[in-house]
Amino acid sequence: MDYKIKKNAPIGVFDSGVGGLTVAREIMRQLPNEKVVYFGDTARVPYGSKSKETVTRFSRQIVRFLQTLDVKTIVVACNTASAYALDEIEQEIDIPMIGVVKPAVKVAAETTQNGKIGVIATQATVSSHVYSSYLRQLNSRMEVIGKACPLFVPLVEEGLLEDPVTDEIARRYLLELMDTNIDTLILGCTHYPLIRDTIGRVVGDGVTLVNPAYETARELKEMLAERNLLTDEKPDLGSNQYQFYVSDGADKFKTFANSIIKYGILTAKTINIEEY
Amino acid sequence: MDYKIKKNAPIGVFDSGVGGLTVAREIMRQLPNEKVVYFGDTARVPYGSKSKETVTRFSRQIVRFLQTLDVKTIVVACNTASAYALDEIEQEIDIPMIGVVKPAVKVAAETTQNGKIGVIATQATVSSHVYSSYLRQLNSRMEVIGKACPLFVPLVEEGLLEDPVTDEIARRYLLELMDTNIDTLILGCTHYPLIRDTIGRVVGDGVTLVNPAYETARELKEMLAERNLLTDEKPDLGSNQYQFYVSDGADKFKTFANSIIKYGILTAKTINIEEY
Repeated sequence: MDYKIKKNAPIGVFDSGVGGLTVAREIMRQLPNEKVVYFGDTARVPYGSKSKETVTRFSRQIVRFLQTLDVKTIVVACNTASAYALDEIEQEIDIPMIGVVKPAVKVAAETTQNGKIGVIATQATVSSHVYSSYLRQLNSRMEVIGKACPLFVPLVEEGLLEDPVTDEIARRYLLELMDTNIDTLILGCTHYPLIRDTIGRVVGDGVTLVNPAYETARELKEMLAERNLLTDEKPDLGSNQYQFYVSDGADKFKTFANSIIKYGILTAKTINIEEY
Repeated sequence: MDYKIKKNAPIGVFDSGVGGLTVAREIMRQLPNEKVVYFGDTARVPYGSKSKETVTRFSRQIVRFLQTLDVKTIVVACNTASAYALDEIEQEIDIPMIGVVKPAVKVAAETTQNGKIGVIATQATVSSHVYSSYLRQLNSRMEVIGKACPLFVPLVEEGLLEDPVTDEIARRYLLELMDTNIDTLILGCTHYPLIRDTIGRVVGDGVTLVNPAYETARELKEMLAERNLLTDEKPDLGSNQYQFYVSDGADKFKTFANSIIKYGILTAKTINIEEY
């Protein structure tokens, strides 16, 4: 196979919508010289309530699209797609893929002292048991307690980041979880870091929060360094270092993205992802 | 054209997901002898945040699918699709189509005494101004005040139909609207009839609620009668009078559908809508 990965090619990042921007933001922070291409599947968001087959089919289309842009690696910045589609698709392509689940699992396993780890996520991620199966691969005595929090995403997208209603919903979802005596909690959905403070207040100081966005960017950096794939260029001022594509609603996406990412998002193009 | 509509063919009903079941339920109540085929686009739900182009493309695929089942009419049981796609698609097909917007508008215009009508709906429906433009066609002096309520759908789907959080969110969305002195309020999203009691409590007795699901079924009955398209058969016991198709998650759909529709939903099949 004469396929050769170019170190100065962009990093591809995708998510079902805007949530993966928290992952893209960490990559931009930790790897400031890298080019990033982001795809958000805003026409078909959310993935959290869809089946494994559908999420895998959608993810495969997105991977094909990102490959047309010559990316050197693909970051699956979506918990549902990391849980459902990553293992299958990474067998089919020649560039390395990294999801948000395994990096978080590694850190959670290192962090816990009593072996009781909570995972909050969408229903699909919880039902997939992906976090618990990876955690048990690392240590079969880990106890993993999953809790679906379906209202967190709409509350974040409605902008209620600091709000009594979000506090109340967080208490309902989390206090029951706290009865299980967890000492570590994985924020298993990319939107959740945006209400990290609310979640932290409810669970208290005795519980360490693990943010997969941060851990994924860290592991991506290590992986690229090991394979000698870190860029050796400095970004030109005014170049399109960051490119954003969506399957619908580029303007709305840009507004939300600019509220999260402080680099000034210049381009957000709409493509028809069903053609890939 | 030798296309002939058969009066004993089923009525096709579609929605972006489960919300349109409130419309299907009204059709089953008001037209108990009719066969109904329902399609819910659960793989691509919600439509409320998607563009006109995307919603029209999705709706066209669904119409093609329903036509393969030989339906005699198509009910667009989705406000966003009624607003964005109906006018265009009904020009392209040979069977009558009916949406949820116009029947509600007609009744609201007849109901209001002060000419001030509120519409609560998804952001897309509000932004489309479809309700206000139809209302102003009937009476140019109508004042229409739209208000997007994006958290109502996730609250309903989380089952919080009677809950202090839903009350609080309803107060935030609706009290501001009440300052405008409306006397009539259209429930412009198919999920909202399920929290009709909460909405009614907040707005009080001085405001008449208009339920498009009910009005659409009534107008459908009239339209079929006028065209001599009402069925002349009685449904066989044990026949598949009601058939349900979705683009994803048939089991989950069946659970929700059975909580809304009390006829015992036997079949819910998953199809790949992107093939149509």
